[in-house]
Amino acid sequence: MPVNIAFLGLGAIGTPMARHLAIPDFSLAVWNRTAEKTAAFAAAHPARAATTPADAARGATFVVTCLPTSREVEALLDGPDGLLAGMARGALLIDCTSGDPATSQRIAARCAERGIGFIDAPVSGGVGGAENGKLTIMVGGDAALLERAMPVLKAMGEKIVHCGTVGAGDALKAVNNALLAVHIWSAAEGLLALARAGVKPAVALDVINASSGRSNSSMNLFPERVLTRAFPRTFRLALLDKDVMIAAQVARDEKVPSPLIQLTAELFRAAHGALGEEADHVEAVKYLEQMAGGEIQ
Amino acid sequence: MPVNIAFLGLGAIGTPMARHLAIPDFSLAVWNRTAEKTAAFAAAHPARAATTPADAARGATFVVTCLPTSREVEALLDGPDGLLAGMARGALLIDCTSGDPATSQRIAARCAERGIGFIDAPVSGGVGGAENGKLTIMVGGDAALLERAMPVLKAMGEKIVHCGTVGAGDALKAVNNALLAVHIWSAAEGLLALARAGVKPAVALDVINASSGRSNSSMNLFPERVLTRAFPRTFRLALLDKDVMIAAQVARDEKVPSPLIQLTAELFRAAHGALGEEADHVEAVKYLEQMAGGEIQ
Amino acid sequence: MPVNIAFLGLGAIGTPMARHLAIPDFSLAVWNRTAEKTAAFAAAHPARAATTPADAARGATFVVTCLPTSREVEALLDGPDGLLAGMARGALLIDCTSGDPATSQRIAARCAERGIGFIDAPVSGGVGGAENGKLTIMVGGDAALLERAMPVLKAMGEKIVHCGTVGAGDALKAVNNALLAVHIWSAAEGLLALARAGVKPAVALDVINASSGRSNSSMNLFPERVLTRAFPRTFRLALLDKDVMIAAQVARDEKVPSPLIQLTAELFRAAHGALGEEADHVEAVKYLEQMAGGEIQ
Amino acid sequence: MPVNIAFLGLGAIGTPMARHLAIPDFSLAVWNRTAEKTAAFAAAHPARAATTPADAARGATFVVTCLPTSREVEALLDGPDGLLAGMARGALLIDCTSGDPATSQRIAARCAERGIGFIDAPVSGGVGGAENGKLTIMVGGDAALLERAMPVLKAMGEKIVHCGTVGAGDALKAVNNALLAVHIWSAAEGLLALARAGVKPAVALDVINASSGRSNSSMNLFPERVLTRAFPRTFRLALLDKDVMIAAQVARDEKVPSPLIQLTAELFRAAHGALGEEADHVEAVKYLEQMAGGEIQ
Repeated sequence: MPVNIAFLGLGAIGTPMARHLAIPDFSLAVWNRTAEKTAAFAAAHPARAATTPADAARGATFVVTCLPTSREVEALLDGPDGLLAGMARGALLIDCTSGDPATSQRIAARCAERGIGFIDAPVSGGVGGAENGKLTIMVGGDAALLERAMPVLKAMGEKIVHCGTVGAGDALKAVNNALLAVHIWSAAEGLLALARAGVKPAVALDVINASSGRSNSSMNLFPERVLTRAFPRTFRLALLDKDVMIAAQVARDEKVPSPLIQLTAELFRAAHGALGEEADHVEAVKYLEQMAGGEIQ
Repeated sequence: MPVNIAFLGLGAIGTPMARHLAIPDFSLAVWNRTAEKTAAFAAAHPARAATTPADAARGATFVVTCLPTSREVEALLDGPDGLLAGMARGALLIDCTSGDPATSQRIAARCAERGIGFIDAPVSGGVGGAENGKLTIMVGGDAALLERAMPVLKAMGEKIVHCGTVGAGDALKAVNNALLAVHIWSAAEGLLALARAGVKPAVALDVINASSGRSNSSMNLFPERVLTRAFPRTFRLALLDKDVMIAAQVARDEKVPSPLIQLTAELFRAAHGALGEEADHVEAVKYLEQMAGGEIQ
Repeated sequence: MPVNIAFLGLGAIGTPMARHLAIPDFSLAVWNRTAEKTAAFAAAHPARAATTPADAARGATFVVTCLPTSREVEALLDGPDGLLAGMARGALLIDCTSGDPATSQRIAARCAERGIGFIDAPVSGGVGGAENGKLTIMVGGDAALLERAMPVLKAMGEKIVHCGTVGAGDALKAVNNALLAVHIWSAAEGLLALARAGVKPAVALDVINASSGRSNSSMNLFPERVLTRAFPRTFRLALLDKDVMIAAQVARDEKVPSPLIQLTAELFRAAHGALGEEADHVEAVKYLEQMAGGEIQ
Repeated sequence: MPVNIAFLGLGAIGTPMARHLAIPDFSLAVWNRTAEKTAAFAAAHPARAATTPADAARGATFVVTCLPTSREVEALLDGPDGLLAGMARGALLIDCTSGDPATSQRIAARCAERGIGFIDAPVSGGVGGAENGKLTIMVGGDAALLERAMPVLKAMGEKIVHCGTVGAGDALKAVNNALLAVHIWSAAEGLLALARAGVKPAVALDVINASSGRSNSSMNLFPERVLTRAFPRTFRLALLDKDVMIAAQVARDEKVPSPLIQLTAELFRAAHGALGEEADHVEAVKYLEQMAGGEIQ
């Protein structure tokens, strides 16, 4: 008999993740803040369109959330339509949001009061990874809860890593993304300086990518998105700004001097402010170009 | 008939590079500041031990230098024993030092006055790359000079890239190394914060290296050198400090706001000061650990 | 008839502040975490030695707290011996701690539930200002509450400024201290560079203090404490570190890019870690001197 | 008999300085790049309008230069119309430019070859100080040369300080101005954060200016120029950018880790690029306001 499962948050990453749960093993209920998305998903897949978070969660063994920030998850908990009104004692909340540890710990405490389990389980791999079920999933929380969640996580991801207690998955995801941000910005600084010194960015990248200064950013993002000026919108700058801030906060909470991550947080904050909510994360490069009055070309 | 060639600077990288020139195509003279190294090389390879830079350069079609900084190269030029006293009109100076563009341009101008060609040709690939002849070589200078130098460069390297006018090779090498420095330091910040938040560094690296925050540093240096606490001495922190400063200077000369590279220059300056001349570049991590009062473990 | 008032926190600043309340207008009860200090104060002044926060607060119209951080204030609230157990509906908690806005707002909410008023009222002016009753007091909270508190505040301070709602006093105090930290560190950078370039620090300060680059730090702290190498311990580096972090957090909460304040927070964090809990705030200069391997002289 | 003196550079500061030399003690020749300014000055004062730098310098015991950067001074030296063609052995070049030490040292060496003395003598005090002859003058160079220059310097300034060897005046001026830049930017960060947290900037400044965080910037520039939004154009941002860069270079040359000054250099570079050549130095505040999307009010 299929296990009841709820999925909340049918965004760019959430939708392909939810698709992997629309399988015979599970009886899937979906919910999204905009009802159109809920209805569209339910029309296209074997899934029930829930009217509220509580409705989605009713009877579910597992509830999966995938929202922009922990704040949205926390906001779903309360009220007669809230998640906690629907979830039964013994159920498990699997939060795939790229959240922040402090809020996740608060949510976990709220759940624990009602006998509900909680793990934070942010994912890495982008839309592509979500589509082909090859996400990396970073889990914070009790090992026994992770064990229980494994069938759900394995349906969506390939590499499932237990990182530590509640919030550990959030912290690792945030640090990974902070490094991404550092790599994007510093590569942009270097390539722009080189371009003005007469070294073509394509030549510079060709050499760097064969040398010790290479990163995922220099090997993939710059050739495909910056040199082409394509800047496709795959992951919002607003979300990367949020992630760098989470990493910066983790470092401060842990009293680790972290000048590069803190400064990067400021730069992405400013870039986000200047470029708006819809800009892609790689467009941060454009903000540096504005600061410098020139382009990487 | 073999072409006369001189090689000056038998250091950790220079020695294996020079070995690739000790072949029948070339008649090789070598020189090092400490005569013992010169003698040892000449004893072990088909090469003449030169007594002075001028002696090494006498009759040479190509002179290759590989010294710690451009300053040492410039200091070899003058005087009765200097390079310029030995080099003939029409010869070509190939400077494989990780130099700075301004000094390379001064040296090139001095050479040009005497009808001597100059290209800056810093290398990437480390001791391993130098030993197996698979260096990447970044060339700044006239394309025709690069063409002439090609047999020499091909003997030592695999990927030979023309970057621009004199100094362009230096600039690109410096920026590559500045990115290396940024990646080392920022990864250390992140991993230390995570370690204190309960995420094991090996777990964190495993995830990051499968995700968007990965870099050459996170994929190779941290697993092999930091987690093991091995910190082998392969490339001196003092030299990386110098390279980051060169990149920082290029960015300033080109009026590119570059907060991350500039701040990294300060951090590596301080780490170099604290850890001394013999420390390896990856030991910069230890300076952050001192600042934070803890270890990445 | 004298008004009942309680004072909690007989530290370096708190003690001289409390003395100004040991006057006929008030019937004063004092409490300190270490009972010896409580007893000593009560022996020397017309004041009752309270045994617990609740005991101090019992019957008081005003309760004044002056503790290292908001965390300590919050920790005093609860339990049978806690402040809230002693304070009556209608009483007013005046928190002179250099606190953080978020915690002050939480405390204010806790007080409000019980009909107790709260204002944050951090002070500026140091031990000297506290002794001679000339403190500046920055008040956050309801204007009517400030009005009620005025006789108390006027007894301790000279300049009483209403800054805004709860937390506004904390925020302003933190920003003032963050600027102090920025001024100390940047002056140290400049003076150390000048010293190495052959300009004597006393000469440099003489000129700067007649010019546009002067600050309270350059005019007072450097001549009196750094050039003399006296470094008297008047205000702990640990507390300034905390204040800069509060200002940095305010800026982040308000989404203001603030690279200088954020970076200063990191530097003072590292200095605090290296120099320990007892170091004076001006000793941060010594940490830069360690980084640079030299002294301002 | 009056002493022959030449003054080159009739800008905002130079013009009132030159006026103090148009006195019976001196026989003054003036020159400016734009001939109209030269003619206007000569029409209004007892001074000869020189047609070239050489013409101005001919027969002069003292030559005073006051130009935007050392580069312009160096560019005046050579050619048949250049300063060196006009200056006699034994004359003294007094450079009041806010210059950089390295270029001043090069100029001094060029002068020394011809038996001409050189001191760097940048000034502080602004247009007001120049007008009322109350400038502070920071002198680098030989003490005996300073002694000879004293009658000239005393005519223009009030506080004449011998800072060290050639370049020391430049270095001190640059550091003073770098601190000014640090103070402006950090105060702007703090005030903007406070404004958003509900603390009025005028209230904040009132408190800060009575507290430890005060600086010349907070006491004068912010009340008069920022709160009023007047932003009068008295000292160009372009020149302050240049000065911060000089201070940053001094710190790097002296191997002093200087994260705050280096970062400030980047921020002012960016502000200068965004706001253009005519913006006033205090308008850097506007660049931060743009970054933050808000105003200090």
